[in-house]
Amino acid sequence: MIEKGNMMAKEQASIITIFGGSGDLARRKLYPALYQLYHRGFLGEHFAVIGTARRPWSDDFYRDIVRTSLQGEPNTDDRSVKHFADHFYYQSHDVTDAEHYVTLKKLAAKLDADYEAEGNRLFYMAMAPRFFGTIASHIRSENLLSETGYNRLIIEKPFGRDFASAKELNDSISAAFTENQIYRIDHYLGKEMVQGLLALRFTNPLLTPIWNKDYISDVQITLAEKVGVEERAGYYETAGALRDMVQNHIMQLIAYVAMEQPATFTPAAVHAAKNKLFTHLPVLTPEQAKRDWVRGQYSASPSQLGYRNEDNVDPESMTETYVAGRIELDDPRWAGVPFFVRTGKRLPAKSTQISINFRPLEHNIFDTVGCNNARVNRLTVFIEPQQGYTLTLNGKTLGASYELEQNALSFVHNQDEINGAPEAYERLIGDALAGDQTNFTRWAEQEHTWNYIDVIRNVWDNSTDLPMYTAGTPGPAEGDALLSRDGFAWAEDFGLQK
Amino acid sequence: MIEKGNMMAKEQASIITIFGGSGDLARRKLYPALYQLYHRGFLGEHFAVIGTARRPWSDDFYRDIVRTSLQGEPNTDDRSVKHFADHFYYQSHDVTDAEHYVTLKKLAAKLDADYEAEGNRLFYMAMAPRFFGTIASHIRSENLLSETGYNRLIIEKPFGRDFASAKELNDSISAAFTENQIYRIDHYLGKEMVQGLLALRFTNPLLTPIWNKDYISDVQITLAEKVGVEERAGYYETAGALRDMVQNHIMQLIAYVAMEQPATFTPAAVHAAKNKLFTHLPVLTPEQAKRDWVRGQYSASPSQLGYRNEDNVDPESMTETYVAGRIELDDPRWAGVPFFVRTGKRLPAKSTQISINFRPLEHNIFDTVGCNNARVNRLTVFIEPQQGYTLTLNGKTLGASYELEQNALSFVHNQDEINGAPEAYERLIGDALAGDQTNFTRWAEQEHTWNYIDVIRNVWDNSTDLPMYTAGTPGPAEGDALLSRDGFAWAEDFGLQK
Repeated sequence: MIEKGNMMAKEQASIITIFGGSGDLARRKLYPALYQLYHRGFLGEHFAVIGTARRPWSDDFYRDIVRTSLQGEPNTDDRSVKHFADHFYYQSHDVTDAEHYVTLKKLAAKLDADYEAEGNRLFYMAMAPRFFGTIASHIRSENLLSETGYNRLIIEKPFGRDFASAKELNDSISAAFTENQIYRIDHYLGKEMVQGLLALRFTNPLLTPIWNKDYISDVQITLAEKVGVEERAGYYETAGALRDMVQNHIMQLIAYVAMEQPATFTPAAVHAAKNKLFTHLPVLTPEQAKRDWVRGQYSASPSQLGYRNEDNVDPESMTETYVAGRIELDDPRWAGVPFFVRTGKRLPAKSTQISINFRPLEHNIFDTVGCNNARVNRLTVFIEPQQGYTLTLNGKTLGASYELEQNALSFVHNQDEINGAPEAYERLIGDALAGDQTNFTRWAEQEHTWNYIDVIRNVWDNSTDLPMYTAGTPGPAEGDALLSRDGFAWAEDFGLQK
Repeated sequence: MIEKGNMMAKEQASIITIFGGSGDLARRKLYPALYQLYHRGFLGEHFAVIGTARRPWSDDFYRDIVRTSLQGEPNTDDRSVKHFADHFYYQSHDVTDAEHYVTLKKLAAKLDADYEAEGNRLFYMAMAPRFFGTIASHIRSENLLSETGYNRLIIEKPFGRDFASAKELNDSISAAFTENQIYRIDHYLGKEMVQGLLALRFTNPLLTPIWNKDYISDVQITLAEKVGVEERAGYYETAGALRDMVQNHIMQLIAYVAMEQPATFTPAAVHAAKNKLFTHLPVLTPEQAKRDWVRGQYSASPSQLGYRNEDNVDPESMTETYVAGRIELDDPRWAGVPFFVRTGKRLPAKSTQISINFRPLEHNIFDTVGCNNARVNRLTVFIEPQQGYTLTLNGKTLGASYELEQNALSFVHNQDEINGAPEAYERLIGDALAGDQTNFTRWAEQEHTWNYIDVIRNVWDNSTDLPMYTAGTPGPAEGDALLSRDGFAWAEDFGLQK
């Protein structure tokens, strides 16, 4: 029996090479995540980190960078932080220079001996995807792969801009790593409540029998951000919300909501279930894409800039900052159930939530006494910032009449619990070290979702229609119309229902 | 279409005669209830109340009694209370003296003319049941029944001590009133959350498909009191918990939990559904009664008297203050599902609640990774003092492992809403004035439940086995053993789950 829970408690041995060790991702996410794994004892004496980037830094300078990145993190004290940072080594590196890989190889071998790392190698590509292929091929050609331990590669999205570029990227890393060695991070899969979705769906006899088209009328997924484009305009201008949020995070959430129960909790079984689900995501015709997908861009409000006025944004930019869509799976469990999704920047609040709306009863006895105001039952999973569930049920209003009202049964994890739980990167790096691919994405999934997204992208790229919405509002009217066409409406708010 | 809700808003005309107008029930419950109906406009200018009892009182004295009974009630002010009390008239009365009924008849006719009460008569027997037959036969023989409006009779439990005495009582009142004119109060049916049970069961598509033996493993009903016998020892010594709580309240709750959905929300349809359910309550053999029913009596704790030491209790009393039982319906929907019920005095807290426990899943993917700690899903309806629901679902614990935990989703009505809603008596008297028998019990139900209870009573009356439990504890161990025999346990606490 696999024991996912216990794995996390055992100290792991590894030499971790981070390409892009001076970068923003490494400093904001990776070093804090590694530190927490160290604090929990999952990393101990038998690990070392090699940071590489172009600039010439000393180990000491690098360790200062690492220590600085931990300021304000929980569970830190000077002594622990110093011990942790002492495991870090820096190697200046030009990704196109074969010689440099030989240097990295030697350093890894030396550190492996020094730290008794059992020949395990974890490579983390924390840099722009255009370098992935070069790095991967050099890793192979210069024999950086271990022959005594494991070899694993973690890569970060974007995994391409469309199916063709994603395939090219995948081919380039597949020359050096097998699919079972590649850990594609979608950090939404590292979020507690996303993993909690599997617990919710598969361990509750109250929900399992009704989790299908006979009982569910529609599913709504909202990934709303309150912030605008911030400092990411350079990347965002070339990506847009569709590539940035829909192809990856939203598609992965749909898989977790809709897939069949895997036979076991092994990575292979989970990926088989997800992949099967994606085979039921039919590629759209351009007409369907026009009908079922809506984009938007935020314009200025009295207190906020419009997207086109942000730094580093083209004043005539056609990049979408909002996407809403209607997805219909042709899976036997879901045929006819619309999955409405939306994501955007400068929406009223930060909120990631999934609502499952149950079909109304055709008849109930309260209809027979003039109290026919039963509303749909709705289960909402709050992924962030709140973490919990709300289930709305019809109840009788207190009072002399027999009117119905919607009662919201809620459970919210308390903030201490949330603060004490691993952040998504910590969780996922821990999984990669433990060799558990469950919460990573596979190429087959990327293939399906890119093929789906490309049709929409092409339609939009050939259109001048870009609805605007005022910053701070819930998006363009076209996003609501998608639902009202089917007789539905968005779950009203962006936070816990009262 | 019936409009139950709207009915309550319309002013009702009636002459209300209360037998036992000087008594405790009238003062504690009936006058406050009538006042609130008056405050809400359901009673207005077209009603009068005739209070009768043996003592010779003046109208003024009686009105003082009525006004005094309203002290501390909500929505009162001197002017309203005075106007209300001016509708009250007192008539000294000997229930066995035919002449006195003639006086009552004349007074009712005069008040009907004065108040334009449309010939409507409501008779309320707020006194010991031994007088019901005499009063009912005199009402008929002395022609107190109206010929131009309605005639309705409200009676209060106890409706007998066993099937035979209940039948005798019923026969005696049936000589004067038809079944459709008789309103038997079970004040649990006037409680908001009991009526809310019907809304919960019949308007929620999430619950309706799974409300049966395929998904529900067991049902638990607890009517726990923290208080002891208090001033009711005289009555209680002759009744005991079985007659006082099980034959009526608990059986009615079982009917609301288990009956099929009535075709409409009419009294006839609701009673047909309840009656059908009770036909599936098989009469026990004495052996079954011994096996499935447990009694107990509270003994002294360091801070509380034992039952036998209470005022007016026989020091060798065999009266039970605790009952627990296991009921199995032979209804196709419920066959094989145990309904565990318990009630008692001097339990750890006051709490009326119903728990619906769902069957566990045979298999889930968390079992395959050593996290097989899924617990049953439980829906608990809190009837009082808290009013609301809790639903427990399995969720993932926050943290690095895949352990499961029980998350309790809760909804609780707030205290202002609860305070603003009608109390059970107000609700039920309002229903009787409106001619809505839905929330009253019918003779057929009493027949079934007395036949069921009589077997248990006979077994106990011929036994010297009376388990004791210390005041303030959850009852005797025998009450727990009833459940553990089937592999279950009582929902742990007497209040909202945390």
